[in-house]
Amino acid sequence: MPQVNVGLIGCGTVGSGVARLLVQRAEMFRRRLGVPLRLQKVAEVDEARFQATGLDRELLTRRDLDILEDPTIDVVVELIGGIDTARDLVLAAIERGKHVVTANKALLALHGNDIFAAAAQAGVEVAFEASVCGGIPIILTLRQGLAANCIQELLGILNGTTNYILTQMTQHNLPYEQALTEAQAQGFAEADPTLDVEGVDAAHKLAILTSLAYGARIDFGAVSVAGISQIEPLDLQFAREFGYTIKLLAITREDNQRLEARVHPTLIPRDHMLAGVSGAMNAVYITGDAVGPLLLSGAGAGMMPTASAVISDILDLTRNLALGIKRRVPPLGSEAALTTSRTVKPLDEVVTNYYFRFAALDRPGVLSQISGLLGKYNISIGAVIQKGREVRGAVPIVMITHEAQEANVKQALAEIDHLPVVSPPAVVYRIEDPHLDAAQI
Amino acid sequence: MPQVNVGLIGCGTVGSGVARLLVQRAEMFRRRLGVPLRLQKVAEVDEARFQATGLDRELLTRRDLDILEDPTIDVVVELIGGIDTARDLVLAAIERGKHVVTANKALLALHGNDIFAAAAQAGVEVAFEASVCGGIPIILTLRQGLAANCIQELLGILNGTTNYILTQMTQHNLPYEQALTEAQAQGFAEADPTLDVEGVDAAHKLAILTSLAYGARIDFGAVSVAGISQIEPLDLQFAREFGYTIKLLAITREDNQRLEARVHPTLIPRDHMLAGVSGAMNAVYITGDAVGPLLLSGAGAGMMPTASAVISDILDLTRNLALGIKRRVPPLGSEAALTTSRTVKPLDEVVTNYYFRFAALDRPGVLSQISGLLGKYNISIGAVIQKGREVRGAVPIVMITHEAQEANVKQALAEIDHLPVVSPPAVVYRIEDPHLDAAQI
Repeated sequence: MPQVNVGLIGCGTVGSGVARLLVQRAEMFRRRLGVPLRLQKVAEVDEARFQATGLDRELLTRRDLDILEDPTIDVVVELIGGIDTARDLVLAAIERGKHVVTANKALLALHGNDIFAAAAQAGVEVAFEASVCGGIPIILTLRQGLAANCIQELLGILNGTTNYILTQMTQHNLPYEQALTEAQAQGFAEADPTLDVEGVDAAHKLAILTSLAYGARIDFGAVSVAGISQIEPLDLQFAREFGYTIKLLAITREDNQRLEARVHPTLIPRDHMLAGVSGAMNAVYITGDAVGPLLLSGAGAGMMPTASAVISDILDLTRNLALGIKRRVPPLGSEAALTTSRTVKPLDEVVTNYYFRFAALDRPGVLSQISGLLGKYNISIGAVIQKGREVRGAVPIVMITHEAQEANVKQALAEIDHLPVVSPPAVVYRIEDPHLDAAQI
Repeated sequence: MPQVNVGLIGCGTVGSGVARLLVQRAEMFRRRLGVPLRLQKVAEVDEARFQATGLDRELLTRRDLDILEDPTIDVVVELIGGIDTARDLVLAAIERGKHVVTANKALLALHGNDIFAAAAQAGVEVAFEASVCGGIPIILTLRQGLAANCIQELLGILNGTTNYILTQMTQHNLPYEQALTEAQAQGFAEADPTLDVEGVDAAHKLAILTSLAYGARIDFGAVSVAGISQIEPLDLQFAREFGYTIKLLAITREDNQRLEARVHPTLIPRDHMLAGVSGAMNAVYITGDAVGPLLLSGAGAGMMPTASAVISDILDLTRNLALGIKRRVPPLGSEAALTTSRTVKPLDEVVTNYYFRFAALDRPGVLSQISGLLGKYNISIGAVIQKGREVRGAVPIVMITHEAQEANVKQALAEIDHLPVVSPPAVVYRIEDPHLDAAQI
C-alpha cells in the first residue's frame, strides 16, 4: 500500500491549520482514502509560528529546499503567499516532478499560464481550491459539478474585507473610513488594506474563476477593477430607495462569444440572493444554461475554512497518487483549456444599467439639461429621484438608467460635468438587475 | 483512444434532457474529457417521448435488456424512477459489470445498502449526484469538497414542491389546500402530491445526505418524517411575530456520537440564509468543523438542472474509464463507509426548542395551568404571545420554549390536551435557532 507524503512550505495562519488537520486527522483521512497520508516536513523560517502548532519539532526545517529536494515528498503545499518567491518555489517543485497545492490567488492570476504550462509539461498537478473563496468548493463546482453547462454568467462576492466594510456602512450608515477602522479592529482588514479595498484581490480571484468557467486562459491585465474606498453612505441610501444594495461584485459573463470580466461596486436588487450575503462572508452566484442559477456561500477566508479547501485538494491528489494516475482533471477542467485563450471585452463596450448621482444647483432646467445630454448619448432614464435636501451646497439628482454602453456613459458624464449648473464629478455605479429593463421602472 | 458508451434507460423529462445534452454537446464533452463520450442507446417504451427529443430513431429500443446486454455499453443511466423495477435494473447492470448513474433517491434511500454492496463486489461505480437537490452539486461537495471536515450539522430544503407551497402560504397568507392547488396548476406539485407534501421525498434525500455526511449507512426507517399538510396560516403568522419563518427542513447532525435524522416543518430565524430560499428552490446549509457554515442553493428539480447533475456523473465516470481506473471515490466517500453503519437517535430523545400553540378558553388561570404542566416536564418557556382574537371559539396562546426533550414535550402536551380549558390538539413545531437559548428571549 503506497503512502503519500506532503511537504508544507509556509506555516502562517492557513499553514498552521493545514498542518494540524493533517496530523490530527491522519486516521480519518486514511479511512477515507484507503492509503496513509503523512505530513513529512514543514518549512518555516519563523520558528515561533511552527511551535504554536504544537507539532513535533522533528517536522520543521528552515529551508524550502529541504522539501523541494526530498525525494519522498509527493505533494508540495505552497502557503507563503506573495508572488515572486512563491512563483519560483512552485515552478521549482513542478520541475522536480512534485504535485503542488496552493492558495495563492495573486500568483495564479498573474502567472497561472506559466505555472499550468509547466505542470502540463512535467505531468504533475496544480490544485488551488483554496485560492478562491476559502472553504467554498467553487473550483470543484466549476471544474466538475457544472461540467455539463455552458456558464452564462458568474457574479461573486469574492472579498470578505470589502463585504464586511460595505455591510457595516449599509447597516449602520457609517462613512467608509470609519467602517474600515472597524474592520481593522475586528481583524477583517489588514493594516494596509489596499489590495482588498481597491478590488485587486477580488480581481485575482475573478481571473481564476473566469478561466475555469470558460475553459480558457485570460489576461489578468484585461480585468477591469474598481474598489470601494470612494463609496459614500449617501449612495447606499439612494440605492436602498431604489430597492438596491451595493456590493463589490466580481462579474464574468459570456455575451456574443465575448467575455466580460470586471470588479466594481454594483447595485443589486435587495431581494437578490447575493444581497443577503453579509459581513465577511463570500458567495458565488453562477448561472449555467442547464442548471440555472446556483448560489454557493460561506466563509471566504480564515485559518480553518481555507485549510479545509487546501486539504480537500491534498486528499484529491492522494487518491490519484494511490491509483498511479495524474491529471485526471486538468487545472482548468480540460487539457484543451490550457492552450486556449480568450479576449476580455474592453469595459467601454460593456452594456449595462447605471446609477448616476449628480450634484446640481437647485435651478429650473437642470434636469432637462442633464437628461438632454444623456439622450444625446443614447442613455435612457428609467427612474429619477430629485430631493430638496442639499449636500455640500448642491441638490442630489439620482437616476437609474436603462441599458447603456459604458463608452457613451463616460462621454455623457464628461459633458455633464462641464455644465455650469453641476458640481463635478458625477457619481456612477453599474447595476446588475436582470428585471430592470423587463419591468416598468 | 478509448470511447465511452452510455445506455440510457428511461426517456422521460430528465432522460430527454440527458439524451439531448449528450448528443448536442458531444464535441464540448470530448474537449473537456479528451475522449469521446457517446450516447449509444435509449430504452423507452413510450415512443412519443423519445421522438420529442428529436434524436435519431436508431438510438431507440423498447427493451432494457438491449442496454444491459450490450457489451459496448460502459455506463447505464437509470432514469425510470420507482423502486422495484429500478432496483432490479440497477442490480442487473452492476452484475454485468456496468457502471450506473441514477437520479433515484427512493431507490437509494431504501436499497442503497444492497446496491452499494453489489457495486463494491462487482468493482463498479454507482453515481447519484442527481438524486438530491437536482443540479446543486451537493454529493460532490460532501464526498470531496468537505472531506477535511467533520460535519456538525446539515439543514436542507430538499423538496421544491413543499417549499413552493410554504412560500405561497407565507407570502400570500393562503391556506394549505389553496397553495397546493396553485402549485399543481404551476406544475410544481403532482396530481398525487403525497410523497412530496408528507415529507417522504425529503426524507429519502436526507437518508442519502446523512450517509455521505457521516460516512456510514443508516436505516431509512429510522428517519422521522412529518409533512406540511397540517400547517395553518395562523402559525405562519405567529412564527413571523416571533421572528421566524416555517420551512420543511431535513435535519441531520451529530450529537455526542449519535446521529439525528429528521424531516419536519421547522421554525427558522427570518435572517437565516435558508429563510431566503423561496419558491421551488432547494438549498443545503452545512456546518463543517473546519469550513464553518456553507450554503448551496439552486434548482432542486426540473429537466435541465437534473440532467446537469446526471451528466456531471457521466463525465466523472468517463474520466475514470479513460484512465482505466474505478471506484476512485467510493459512493459514500470511502470504502470503509460501506461496512460502517450508524444508529439514528430516536425522536423522543431529541432536544430542541419548540413552538406551541394552544387553543384555550379565555379564562383566568389558563396560562398558569399550561405552564405548570410544562414545568412539571422540565419545559421552560422563553416567550409567550396571548392575544384576544378568538379562533374557532378559543384564544390562541403561543409559546417558544427553551431547549426541551421531545419525550417530555409529548407527555406534557398530552396532559395539557386533557385540561378542560384547552381545546386539543395543541399545535407543535420544532425550532432551529442556535441563538435562542444563548440570547435573552
